[in-house]
Amino acid sequence: MPHLHVEYSNNLRDLDVDRLLLRLNHTLVGSGQFADELDIKSRAVALASYRVGTALSERAFAHIKLSILSGRSPEVKRQLSAALLEVLKEAVPAVAGVDIQLCVEVLDIDRDSYAKTHVPA
Amino acid sequence: MPHLHVEYSNNLRDLDVDRLLLRLNHTLVGSGQFADELDIKSRAVALASYRVGTALSERAFAHIKLSILSGRSPEVKRQLSAALLEVLKEAVPAVAGVDIQLCVEVLDIDRDSYAKTHVPA
Amino acid sequence: MPHLHVEYSNNLRDLDVDRLLLRLNHTLVGSGQFADELDIKSRAVALASYRVGTALSERAFAHIKLSILSGRSPEVKRQLSAALLEVLKEAVPAVAGVDIQLCVEVLDIDRDSYAKTHVPA
Repeated sequence: MPHLHVEYSNNLRDLDVDRLLLRLNHTLVGSGQFADELDIKSRAVALASYRVGTALSERAFAHIKLSILSGRSPEVKRQLSAALLEVLKEAVPAVAGVDIQLCVEVLDIDRDSYAKTHVPA
Repeated sequence: MPHLHVEYSNNLRDLDVDRLLLRLNHTLVGSGQFADELDIKSRAVALASYRVGTALSERAFAHIKLSILSGRSPEVKRQLSAALLEVLKEAVPAVAGVDIQLCVEVLDIDRDSYAKTHVPA
Repeated sequence: MPHLHVEYSNNLRDLDVDRLLLRLNHTLVGSGQFADELDIKSRAVALASYRVGTALSERAFAHIKLSILSGRSPEVKRQLSAALLEVLKEAVPAVAGVDIQLCVEVLDIDRDSYAKTHVPA
């Protein structure tokens, strides 16, 4: 915890995913909401099969899902999603002729049944 | 919003994924639940590593997850999942000797912390 | 139902994913919580793009998400996540110099809007 997922349509060709993940993680550390930077586990998946709406024009999207243990306030969640969206906006380059949507969703993980173990190097 | 995810085991070899996504999006537009066709963001992922149950016979599945902003009624959610399942049934061809399961799940996105931006082409 | 997702960073090179999925499914059958082994649908995805925290040292993770129809008790969910974590711990080999995190999350699927069909072989 937290877990962060980035999904993006693969017509966002110039997105530097490794840099994006690092910046997202720094943003989560900077939020002060998470005790240990080690806990932040982020991943990104490029989507080869996607469809935005029903029109024929070319469209793209990137979506972040942040999953955090239940118990944080609505205000904290709003601040987290706003901060992540800022990073995403800076990271995703415009593509000529392509309509782009960027979104961030925050989701609770059931704290009671979450199980974890750590095998240090 | 809405976000739609299709996952399918890659032994469903003859599934026309692009056609499926377009038909699912048309179904969501036709439901009247979503203001703008542009908002519908769908993707499909073929699974290379999967296991259905514990028996040795060959099995397949396709699963749809529809994520919508919280606030819709149980009745609307049931209608949406039933309509998407109909499309999935028509789209997935039978495979000789393969047991197939098709499912649809509807999930709420926390409306309060959802953040989005749009960069028109 | 149930649906199980395994995600793992692809620096866990020696993970035998097919064996892991089969063992996880056997564990779910053995829990006595699910009527039919056929219902258990598991998949695994190797992540090529991931970032754990902000430090430069090499890190890995594997994450299980178990999605079950709503209505089970917190105690049952804790037992399921503990049992799955045990399987994951046994399955993931240590990697020299790599810090590894293993986690299990249990999630409710909205029972009311879940739709399913079965096409027997």
